[in-house]
Amino acid sequence: MNMSAQTNTAAANPSPYDAIAAHFQNDMMEVNRLIIDHMDSSVPLVKQVATYLIAAGGKRIRPLLTIAFSDLAGSVNDNAYKLGAAVEFIHTATLLHDDVVDESAQRRGKASANQNFGNKTPILVGDFLFSRSFQLMVGTNNIEALRILSDAAAIIAEGEVLQLSVHGKLDIERDTHLKVLEGKTAALFAAACESGALVGDAGNETQQAARNFGLHMGLCFQIIDDLIDYNETKESSGKNQGDDFFEGKITLPVFIAYENGSDEEKTFWENVFRKETRDAEDFDKAYTLIQKHDALNKTYEIAKEYHASAQKQLSSFANSATNKMLQALLDFTLNRHF
Amino acid sequence: MNMSAQTNTAAANPSPYDAIAAHFQNDMMEVNRLIIDHMDSSVPLVKQVATYLIAAGGKRIRPLLTIAFSDLAGSVNDNAYKLGAAVEFIHTATLLHDDVVDESAQRRGKASANQNFGNKTPILVGDFLFSRSFQLMVGTNNIEALRILSDAAAIIAEGEVLQLSVHGKLDIERDTHLKVLEGKTAALFAAACESGALVGDAGNETQQAARNFGLHMGLCFQIIDDLIDYNETKESSGKNQGDDFFEGKITLPVFIAYENGSDEEKTFWENVFRKETRDAEDFDKAYTLIQKHDALNKTYEIAKEYHASAQKQLSSFANSATNKMLQALLDFTLNRHF
Repeated sequence: MNMSAQTNTAAANPSPYDAIAAHFQNDMMEVNRLIIDHMDSSVPLVKQVATYLIAAGGKRIRPLLTIAFSDLAGSVNDNAYKLGAAVEFIHTATLLHDDVVDESAQRRGKASANQNFGNKTPILVGDFLFSRSFQLMVGTNNIEALRILSDAAAIIAEGEVLQLSVHGKLDIERDTHLKVLEGKTAALFAAACESGALVGDAGNETQQAARNFGLHMGLCFQIIDDLIDYNETKESSGKNQGDDFFEGKITLPVFIAYENGSDEEKTFWENVFRKETRDAEDFDKAYTLIQKHDALNKTYEIAKEYHASAQKQLSSFANSATNKMLQALLDFTLNRHF
Repeated sequence: MNMSAQTNTAAANPSPYDAIAAHFQNDMMEVNRLIIDHMDSSVPLVKQVATYLIAAGGKRIRPLLTIAFSDLAGSVNDNAYKLGAAVEFIHTATLLHDDVVDESAQRRGKASANQNFGNKTPILVGDFLFSRSFQLMVGTNNIEALRILSDAAAIIAEGEVLQLSVHGKLDIERDTHLKVLEGKTAALFAAACESGALVGDAGNETQQAARNFGLHMGLCFQIIDDLIDYNETKESSGKNQGDDFFEGKITLPVFIAYENGSDEEKTFWENVFRKETRDAEDFDKAYTLIQKHDALNKTYEIAKEYHASAQKQLSSFANSATNKMLQALLDFTLNRHF
């Protein structure tokens, strides 16, 4: 996805993402410094692969959330920087492993690490970055931060295995699908926000609000991502329409069309996801059924609920400039490309 | 390797491993209970794969070291159990990832997890167990234990990448090879001992002695393992003579024969490890050269130095029954099958 491209406002206005990134520019430089320092290794290949992915960029949305919530809860300090870097390392480690598991060819607009270095090195460099993230957390001396982030790491891994187990299955519970989405995005968003609030000196209650904000914004983010896949052309989103469908990934719009479909339609869905590959004709049929059952709007409505529930959490914090920027970022998460 | 089979003593005598395992039987039951509890997951496939490998057994030598050093340093408590389980989880996670990286077909006498479940699930379940290990450590509330074990995890991952980078290379520094061995075995042995001593209430100095004991015992252990591969028949060790050679793994006996070899011999070694596969004739030639340069005895001498340096560390602790059992275990590490 391309969070910095916003179609609703004039090009001269910075996107809410750009605004908050600019606001915390100096803090993010500290995070980046820690990221670069901790990628260092006496084994050249380790550094090479780690740098390959991390230098390719990415929005650093997760450390930005850590910093923002640290600020919101009190003040941004060194521990927030360390946790921001740790969160980005966990994210990067999961990307490396995901790309091996998914046999991905591309990541961040260039050949994926597994495409470039084979499968073996990215598995092991992922493990290295994961270890480094815990070394960074240990540096905060804050056992509660370690609890938050190790819990998130377990949820992420469980969610990924769950995703493998239900691959191609249409008759799964909605809760099961949400658990996959939690592992994929929301658990680390939640931990990024909560750990930021923790070291920024939040009380217990606001720490929980930070967590819920991240969780629900993460779910909103991922659901909109899955929706965009059916709704956008490459030009506006950087993705091809129907990528998920062609890769056999079943997302919320499909679940909704399936649940509301006739027996004949259900049979179509079951058959089409049982096939090795799907063609343009399959996609047209699928898209027609999705439209017939208003599944994109229904998907949007679900994302909207998570948006509302994330929004509610912000009222636990002072109505500062950061609070307003997080509100705008949350709104943008819901409304980008739609 | 089969640490419980000892050829030097009568069959009726328990091996030093069996003796120390029996001594700490109740403590190890607590560790096992934690292991089983923490393998639990709401995702059935996670539990299935985790159980598959952990139920296959293994000696649990690492948690046993944690418990023994906890006892040696003061007393065995709940935190030692948690760290023992955490250490075993890190070990199991690395086995899962190693088997994917090495494309292994067997582990602990049965089909490896990757053979049985494919590559994807073991990668992700490895990540899950790794996260669980950190959750267990967080449960000790001891940030220093987290530091020790996250440092070890980083060394392990770096060592594995290093091993990939130098695969098939004969002209590497001895230190580089030792760094591979440290990552493979010694770093986790060291962390198991040190973290045990830490929570058993050791002072700073004895904690360092525990660490050095584990490090040097681990190096001795791995070097003897590599030696046995050239020296044993399947009957006595459970491994085939020359497994490492046929798999193209270059170990200390080969490095020594290569370093001491003539130009012609060096060319033989370079060519034989450049080939896709090696046959029995290659092995015979290799074995002849290893014997010619007395490389097995020289390898043993190196292991003996690590044995001596590990032994020295034990004098930092009271001369208790546990101390004597660790001494016997260390001796056994050097002298099994030789």
